[in-house]
Amino acid sequence: MAGVVEHSLVQRHVFPRMVRFADIDSLGHVNNVRFFDYLEDARLGMLHIDPYRAGDAPFKGLVVARHEIDYRRPLTFRADPVNVETWVTEIRSVRFTLEYEIKDDREVFVTARSVIVAYDVESAAPRRLNTDELAYLKRYSI
Amino acid sequence: MAGVVEHSLVQRHVFPRMVRFADIDSLGHVNNVRFFDYLEDARLGMLHIDPYRAGDAPFKGLVVARHEIDYRRPLTFRADPVNVETWVTEIRSVRFTLEYEIKDDREVFVTARSVIVAYDVESAAPRRLNTDELAYLKRYSI
Amino acid sequence: MAGVVEHSLVQRHVFPRMVRFADIDSLGHVNNVRFFDYLEDARLGMLHIDPYRAGDAPFKGLVVARHEIDYRRPLTFRADPVNVETWVTEIRSVRFTLEYEIKDDREVFVTARSVIVAYDVESAAPRRLNTDELAYLKRYSI
Amino acid sequence: MAGVVEHSLVQRHVFPRMVRFADIDSLGHVNNVRFFDYLEDARLGMLHIDPYRAGDAPFKGLVVARHEIDYRRPLTFRADPVNVETWVTEIRSVRFTLEYEIKDDREVFVTARSVIVAYDVESAAPRRLNTDELAYLKRYSI
Repeated sequence: MAGVVEHSLVQRHVFPRMVRFADIDSLGHVNNVRFFDYLEDARLGMLHIDPYRAGDAPFKGLVVARHEIDYRRPLTFRADPVNVETWVTEIRSVRFTLEYEIKDDREVFVTARSVIVAYDVESAAPRRLNTDELAYLKRYSI
Repeated sequence: MAGVVEHSLVQRHVFPRMVRFADIDSLGHVNNVRFFDYLEDARLGMLHIDPYRAGDAPFKGLVVARHEIDYRRPLTFRADPVNVETWVTEIRSVRFTLEYEIKDDREVFVTARSVIVAYDVESAAPRRLNTDELAYLKRYSI
Repeated sequence: MAGVVEHSLVQRHVFPRMVRFADIDSLGHVNNVRFFDYLEDARLGMLHIDPYRAGDAPFKGLVVARHEIDYRRPLTFRADPVNVETWVTEIRSVRFTLEYEIKDDREVFVTARSVIVAYDVESAAPRRLNTDELAYLKRYSI
Repeated sequence: MAGVVEHSLVQRHVFPRMVRFADIDSLGHVNNVRFFDYLEDARLGMLHIDPYRAGDAPFKGLVVARHEIDYRRPLTFRADPVNVETWVTEIRSVRFTLEYEIKDDREVFVTARSVIVAYDVESAAPRRLNTDELAYLKRYSI
């Protein structure tokens, strides 16, 4: 539509992750299982450590309900970190979906998606996401 | 329907896997990432160790192209192993799909699916599955 | 001395441990850190799972105070497990020492030693080993 | 000698290491095995990544011959990294010894020591440390 500039407001969370020597398997590549460590570190940074540094702690209990991961290109050892970019694609009453890319300036090595469920530890059951959690997630939502 | 005998010819590969103390996270459950170790151990048993023990080594180079995993119920520490059951659901010229259940006699904890690609290490490129590989996969195919 | 038969009454705990694909690093050997998983699995088997199967649970809280490990020979991937042999070399009021060998029929790959302290979780402090714990340890003591 | 002030010129290598969620075991502390990951990351930073960034690559093949570790205080999850400080205490013709402290501003959690052997991958045998390696190690030696 004339005059309307379409622009993306999606803000991705960017987490630089060192490639650890222990990530490399006998083929010389980061092992497929180890990439879930990268996703876990990025997720923890986005949902817990970043808000904590800002004096905040929006998220109560969360559990992973599902992961999907596609391996695009092999990643070999390097001195500089790769970036894990994370954003939110779906928010429902008791769960939300994260999407990720693990990449450097030139290539995407991995794309992935996780479904995260809000969880009440005491009752050991799903619970509704509260207002603070929803507000925080919207910062990174499409 | 009369005269029709429904029967499954699917043979699942069964791999008993000990729950390791190191698998348990601070919530007291097997951590979501650690279940990929269970799948990896089962897959290695099915595709490499079992045929090796039978004097065979059908598989050349294989790489994981994709994983999907759904967490059904939390798994806590136990003295007895859980079973990883694995079977083949799709065979194409350069790849095949494995499905898994991690379970005990009463419950399914995890269901998962992996796409595995035949890979030529020297040319660092996909290759066609050969006759021995295809024959072995058919033992566990629907 | 003539007429004296020296014989060992030491009973070692033997724990067969599969070599996992994930244990192998980019040099093609079991990574030095991964051997601590072997020791942990063996220790858990000896101190918790074995007595549990016998209807017993002698050990309350234990923490590792020290490890020493010597790498004797590289261990490469193999279809058969290696054995972790464990025995007790020193028992004091609040701690004991375990020694280990990781080996197959022909070679010793690793020797190690751990100091384990009896620990009271509630007070977060060392505690004295109790009678049941001491009796169990003596089965594997020199 | 009168008038002579003995002072240490020891420069320690300092590596900040994030506490990973996956490091925490079911007791809520960093698991004893996981601390070897901290040491490995610090050692790789000191011996490979730092010189690489400086346009240098002094070390050829190295293998770990021995580790010793003492657990001083439990380390719990925190948003800020801990420091792994590393220095060299002994240099011989084919090996050297590293000492480490894992600490924050107030406490030491772990002290450790590793014996590292210069290794020739092709001949799969120890080799003499070369001039460049010796020069680099002396920067961090007592």
